[in-house]
Amino acid sequence: MLMIDQLHEAIVRAQNPTALGLDTQFVHVPEALKAGRTATEAVFAYNVALLDALMDLVPAVKVQIAYYEQLGPEGMSVFAGTLREAKARGYIVIADAKRNDIGPTAKAYANAFLGAADGESDCAFEADFLTINPYLGVDGVQPFLDACAAHDKGLFILAKTSNPSSGQLQDMVFQDGRTLYEAVGDLISGWGEGFLGECGYASVGAVVGATHPEQGARLRQRLRSVFFLVPGYGAQGAKAEDLAVMFGEKGRGAIVNASRSLLTAHQNPAYSRYSPTEAVIAEAKNMRSALLKAIGGQIV
Amino acid sequence: MLMIDQLHEAIVRAQNPTALGLDTQFVHVPEALKAGRTATEAVFAYNVALLDALMDLVPAVKVQIAYYEQLGPEGMSVFAGTLREAKARGYIVIADAKRNDIGPTAKAYANAFLGAADGESDCAFEADFLTINPYLGVDGVQPFLDACAAHDKGLFILAKTSNPSSGQLQDMVFQDGRTLYEAVGDLISGWGEGFLGECGYASVGAVVGATHPEQGARLRQRLRSVFFLVPGYGAQGAKAEDLAVMFGEKGRGAIVNASRSLLTAHQNPAYSRYSPTEAVIAEAKNMRSALLKAIGGQIV
Repeated sequence: MLMIDQLHEAIVRAQNPTALGLDTQFVHVPEALKAGRTATEAVFAYNVALLDALMDLVPAVKVQIAYYEQLGPEGMSVFAGTLREAKARGYIVIADAKRNDIGPTAKAYANAFLGAADGESDCAFEADFLTINPYLGVDGVQPFLDACAAHDKGLFILAKTSNPSSGQLQDMVFQDGRTLYEAVGDLISGWGEGFLGECGYASVGAVVGATHPEQGARLRQRLRSVFFLVPGYGAQGAKAEDLAVMFGEKGRGAIVNASRSLLTAHQNPAYSRYSPTEAVIAEAKNMRSALLKAIGGQIV
Repeated sequence: MLMIDQLHEAIVRAQNPTALGLDTQFVHVPEALKAGRTATEAVFAYNVALLDALMDLVPAVKVQIAYYEQLGPEGMSVFAGTLREAKARGYIVIADAKRNDIGPTAKAYANAFLGAADGESDCAFEADFLTINPYLGVDGVQPFLDACAAHDKGLFILAKTSNPSSGQLQDMVFQDGRTLYEAVGDLISGWGEGFLGECGYASVGAVVGATHPEQGARLRQRLRSVFFLVPGYGAQGAKAEDLAVMFGEKGRGAIVNASRSLLTAHQNPAYSRYSPTEAVIAEAKNMRSALLKAIGGQIV
């Protein structure tokens, strides 16, 4: 089954278009998990605890590699271990690395996260989906597409990012009337043509920030078969009602990432009577309810 | 002394605007260095041999992280070790990672490669310069600028990349008449304003591919104080005479990276009578001669 159909099916099963964002830092870790552990061990222990807590509720995990990279090779081992533990629990696993380079080097990155297209080497940090940056154009993307075809993997390619200044370049208008983010969206749509799943979406998706619903709505209208990974919920400011525009018919075609709001649920005064596990479950349930309400109550 | 002045001074001292590109893979390693070593150990041993061979001839090293990332955490240790060994031998060290993300995450990447702006954490993969991707706009770049200011580091930001399809997005023309690569170049110029060195260039530079001399010449005219990191020499097809347009007055303002032509010099039939060390020295000397000839014989 194509990776995008696996993602869709997992979302339908959980009735929850949420990805748990593991941008985990030591400051996020509950006190009880810090005791007797190094910072790196504590981060890993908290990731495992979150994965255990949410496995029946949340269908996917997005692991942001930057927070592990800054911890050095030991942090990269925790990154690899987190991907493995998530997969072992049945989550769809997204490596958020935004990698990009010229063809031969992009192939090395594809090897690292998706598997070698020739199948000759191991995959150091295996994920189901990888985020990449489109600035270099098609021959920087093709090695990732080749790896997706060889191993049934997927991509989410940056189109309109969630940060406040994303418009500085992405909203600029070309002479053909398209913005940069629309031109990128059109490329993503084309790159996904060989990867169309039964759910109506392709395994080559787009990153579209929740914090820019106007641009998101334009992309949703324009890119009927492109699945959206939507960051920016919660701590970055986007609310569930802003997000309805990111979804297609039947509540399909998008998954919303939440990182800080879930990672810090146990520090949220609203959940002060709860254990850390109860707090993150409560926050995830509230997020699911708000999203389902915004998109019409059901994903089919 | 500002990092860009250190780079300029190192280039003048060596009379060589070359960076050794350590995109090292196991297939590049001479047979004598493979014996008794794992693939990862062999890559590291070859890097050290190259650093030893070229330390009086080549002023800078660019280490492409993708080739180490695909080897997993152990590969990342070799990446860190290569940066350290290069620095210990007096090279200016460029980490080629093309990282990019929203502000808080960009800060984690800045911590990883340049050092924490608040000085509170160790730097896992410390380099003098880091390459980054501009697609997210200023608030994805600011954390890197902050780290440069705190630790006297530098950046090379993608403007016009060396791959064949770089024009697919980068050469598109906005309604204001500028191409995307020119708009990015103008941003880079602005971001470098606080980092202007005595050599006339700023520590915030641009990546401009050797394979696109027409666009390179336009950027050189437009961006008088932006230092160029120029990949694409040799195996990617650019010749020394194509590269003169990338330099400013007095042979200043650019450094040319060569990876495969140096890494595989010992496999080059032209050097078949030489030892691997003699071969890479010969190739580096030929490259230096060709570049110096193209830019007028001297860098001052």
